[in-house]
Amino acid sequence: MIKNDNILALASPSGIGAISLIRVSGPESILIVDKIFRGVEKIKLLDQIANTVQLGYIVDNYRTIDKVLITVFKNPKSYTGEDLVEISCHGSLFIQESIIQLLLNHNCRVAKPGEFTMRSFLNGKMDLSQAESVADLISSNSEASHRLAMNQMRGGFKNDINDLRTELVNFASLIELELDFSQEDVEFANVKELNKLLDKITLSLKKLIDSFKTGNVIKNGIPISIVGEPNTGKSTLLNTLLNEDRAIVSSIAGTTRDTIEDQININGVNCRFIDTAGIRNTEDKIESIGIERTFKKMNESEIIIFLIDYSTLNQEKLNYYVSYLNEIDNKFPNTKLITILNKKDIKSDIPINDLKIFDPILISAKNKSNIDRLRDEISLYINNLTVQIDNSVVSNSRHYDLLNKTYEEIHKVKISISKNISSDLLAIDIKQAIYFLGELTGEISNDEVLGNIFSKFCIGK
Amino acid sequence: MIKNDNILALASPSGIGAISLIRVSGPESILIVDKIFRGVEKIKLLDQIANTVQLGYIVDNYRTIDKVLITVFKNPKSYTGEDLVEISCHGSLFIQESIIQLLLNHNCRVAKPGEFTMRSFLNGKMDLSQAESVADLISSNSEASHRLAMNQMRGGFKNDINDLRTELVNFASLIELELDFSQEDVEFANVKELNKLLDKITLSLKKLIDSFKTGNVIKNGIPISIVGEPNTGKSTLLNTLLNEDRAIVSSIAGTTRDTIEDQININGVNCRFIDTAGIRNTEDKIESIGIERTFKKMNESEIIIFLIDYSTLNQEKLNYYVSYLNEIDNKFPNTKLITILNKKDIKSDIPINDLKIFDPILISAKNKSNIDRLRDEISLYINNLTVQIDNSVVSNSRHYDLLNKTYEEIHKVKISISKNISSDLLAIDIKQAIYFLGELTGEISNDEVLGNIFSKFCIGK
Repeated sequence: MIKNDNILALASPSGIGAISLIRVSGPESILIVDKIFRGVEKIKLLDQIANTVQLGYIVDNYRTIDKVLITVFKNPKSYTGEDLVEISCHGSLFIQESIIQLLLNHNCRVAKPGEFTMRSFLNGKMDLSQAESVADLISSNSEASHRLAMNQMRGGFKNDINDLRTELVNFASLIELELDFSQEDVEFANVKELNKLLDKITLSLKKLIDSFKTGNVIKNGIPISIVGEPNTGKSTLLNTLLNEDRAIVSSIAGTTRDTIEDQININGVNCRFIDTAGIRNTEDKIESIGIERTFKKMNESEIIIFLIDYSTLNQEKLNYYVSYLNEIDNKFPNTKLITILNKKDIKSDIPINDLKIFDPILISAKNKSNIDRLRDEISLYINNLTVQIDNSVVSNSRHYDLLNKTYEEIHKVKISISKNISSDLLAIDIKQAIYFLGELTGEISNDEVLGNIFSKFCIGK
Repeated sequence: MIKNDNILALASPSGIGAISLIRVSGPESILIVDKIFRGVEKIKLLDQIANTVQLGYIVDNYRTIDKVLITVFKNPKSYTGEDLVEISCHGSLFIQESIIQLLLNHNCRVAKPGEFTMRSFLNGKMDLSQAESVADLISSNSEASHRLAMNQMRGGFKNDINDLRTELVNFASLIELELDFSQEDVEFANVKELNKLLDKITLSLKKLIDSFKTGNVIKNGIPISIVGEPNTGKSTLLNTLLNEDRAIVSSIAGTTRDTIEDQININGVNCRFIDTAGIRNTEDKIESIGIERTFKKMNESEIIIFLIDYSTLNQEKLNYYVSYLNEIDNKFPNTKLITILNKKDIKSDIPINDLKIFDPILISAKNKSNIDRLRDEISLYINNLTVQIDNSVVSNSRHYDLLNKTYEEIHKVKISISKNISSDLLAIDIKQAIYFLGELTGEISNDEVLGNIFSKFCIGK
C-alpha cells in the first residue's frame, strides 16, 4: 500500500484568487521542484532548511512562469510524513495549470482524492479515525459540526475504543487460558464475572452507538419538516425563517457561503427544511399517496412544525386537529412537535384560550411577528443536543456500522455463554469483535477499505 | 497614504478546498496572530525566525478552531514590506470565517481589494507598473496574456520610459538654461538639434502607443466575428471550433477552467467569438438595422470569418458575394478576412475552380472536415501578433492613455518651437509630459489614482 512515487495536487480551492497552493509529496519531491525553481537567493531546494520559505521563480526552460514562495518540509516532519514541498503561486488558472503541467513532466503524478492524508495515515502520522476527521473538518459548515470534527481529530472516542479493545483482549485470553464450558469443572463465579464484564462492554458500545443519532444530525443538519394544509402559510414561514438567517449571516469579504437552499443556522447547528406535500383530510387516492409521503418525511424529521391557519379555524377543524396532532404524537414519539397557529393578525372565530390544548405558538409569518418564539423553541431543542457533544459522540457512519457489528458479536458471546458453548467458539466471536474495533481505528486495514474511505476526500488533501 | 493599521484577507480562492490561506499584514500582525495561536513546539510567534513555518492551533479562548501552519515574514522582507503572517488552515468555509472573525476581533480589519499590493508599492517593493502587472498576472488566462503580464512584472517597458524621461529632463534644462526663442540670438543649429531630439522621442512614444493594439487583443482575446447569411452554418462552425478546443484543453484534476463561452485558445492566445446577426441582401428596414449592427461588430473584430453556403451557391449569388466581400475589404482594411465555403460535402452548381477569386477555404462544419485549414489560417495571423510580444508592448489602458497624453504634449512643443514661442511656455509643456510619464511609473501618484488602480484587484492581493 505504501507508494514511493511523487504526487502533486492543487491544495487551495479551485478557481482564481490572489494566491494558490500546489503541494508535492514523495521521496523526490524536493529534487523535482528544484529542477523548475530558480531562487532569488540562489539557494538550491536540496540545501534549503526544513520548514523555511524561499522566494524565487518557477521556470520552464527559459520561460518564467511565476514568482513563487517555496516551503520545504522534510520526512518525517511533514503532513504526509514524506518530503513535501509547497508552492505558493499567483492564483491565475493559467499559472496553476502551467505549474502542475510542468511538474507532471518531471516524474510526478496527480494525487488521488485524500492521498496526502492516506499517506499521512500509512506513515503513522495519524490514526484512521483522525484521518477521517480531516474530511469532516473541511466540510464542516457549522459550529457544532466543526466541534464534532475537531474532537475527532484530537483523538475523539479513541480512548473509549482502546479501553473496549483492551477489555476484550483480556477477556479473550481469560477464555482461552482458563475456561472450558464443555467441561464439568466450570467455576460459576467466573461465568458471572464474565457476564458482568460483557454487560459493561455492551453498555459502553450502546452509549457510542446511541450517540450516532446526535452526531449524525449535528454533522448533516437537523431535519425539520413544516407540515400543514394548503394555504396555511408554509412557504411564507419558511421564507421568513430563511431570510432572517440570510440577514444574520455576516458576509465577510473574500469568503463565500455555499448556502444550501432551505437551510438555516440556529445556535451553531444547521437546520435543513424538508419539503412536504402538506396534509389534508381526504378520501382522494392521489392525495392519500401525498399524505403517505408526508408521513415518511415526518418520520425522517427531528422536528415537525405543524402549521394551522388561525384565521379560518372553526370548531369542526379544531376537533380534527386535536385528534390529528395526537396521532402524530403517538406515531413519532421521538420527534419534537411544535404547533403553530399562523395568521394571528386576522380575527378568528375561536378564542385563543380555547387552544391551550395544543400549547401553540401564535405567529404571523407574513408580518414576521412572534417568529422569535418559534426560533426559541427550536433553540431549546438544539441546546439539548449540543450539550451532548463530547469526545464520545460518533458521527461517522463507517464507525457506527463497525460499532454495531462489534455489538452483535458481543451479543453472540453472551448467548453462547448462556448456552455453555465451547470456549474455542466463543473465542472466535470475541476475536471478530476485536477485529471490528481494529478496523475502526485502522490498526487493521486493507486497500479496499482505505480506498473507499479516502475516495470521499477532496483532491489535494 | 501609508497606513499603519493591520489588514487581513483570505488570499486563496474563495470556496471549499484542502487548504486555505489567510494573510495578515501590518506592524502588529505577528503580535495579533500570536494571541490566537498555540504552537505545538510552544514557540511564540514573536520569537519565530523570519521565513519559517510553525505548526500549531488557532484557538478562541479554549475552543480549538483549527490545526494550522503559520509562516512569519518580517519587515522589510515580505510581500507588503511590513511584518506579515500567513495562516494556512483547513479549507472549510466555517473555519475560514471563524479565523477571519477572530482576527477582526483583534485589531485587524479586512483589506480593501489590492491593498497588500498597494502597500508593497507604497513601501517601495515594486513600482506602479509592476504592481499593476500583479492583477494582470492573476487574471491571465492564456500563454500570451501571461507572457505579457510576466514581462511587465519583470520591468516591462520601464527602461523605455526611463530613457524617455531622462531625455525630456535634459531637454527641459537645455531650454531653461540656454534658449530663448523670443530673442534674436537664437542659434539655428540648436533648434534643429532640438527638433531631432523631439522626433526621436515622438518615435519611441509612437512605437509604444502602437503596441497597445497588439497588447490589448492579446490581453483580452482576439475578437473574431463569423458573418454569413442565415443557414450558412455559422453556429455549426462555431460549435465545431469550440468543441475541438474543449477536447484539446487538458483537464487537470483539481483545477477548473472558467471557460468563457465562445472562446477558444489558438497558439496560446484566446480568441473570442463575437455574435453577429448575420447579413442579408435586403431592402427591409429592420433587417438593415441588423446589418448596421453586424458592420459595427465587424469593425470591432481582428478577424472576420465570412461564411458562404457552397451547396446553394449560384451565379447570381456569386456575383453578389464578390462585390460584397470587396466592400468589406475596403471598409475594414486592417481586419483579416477569411472566406469560407461551407457544406462542401453537398454538390454545388458552381465548380470550385470558379471560386478562386475569393481564395476560399472549403469546409464542412457539420462533418468537421478541413477545419484545420481554418485553424491554420487563424494561427498564422496569431503568430504574427505574438512574435511582437516583448518588453515594449503596452497592454494597460491607463498606460496607453498616459502615453497618448505625453505624445500630445510633445506635439505641442514641436508646434511651439516652429512658432518661436518663448522658452518658459515650452518648459511648461515639457514638464507636463514629464509629469505624465511619472504618473505612469508611479513616481508621481495620488490617493485617487492609486485607489482607482487597486480597486480593480481581487481581495487578498
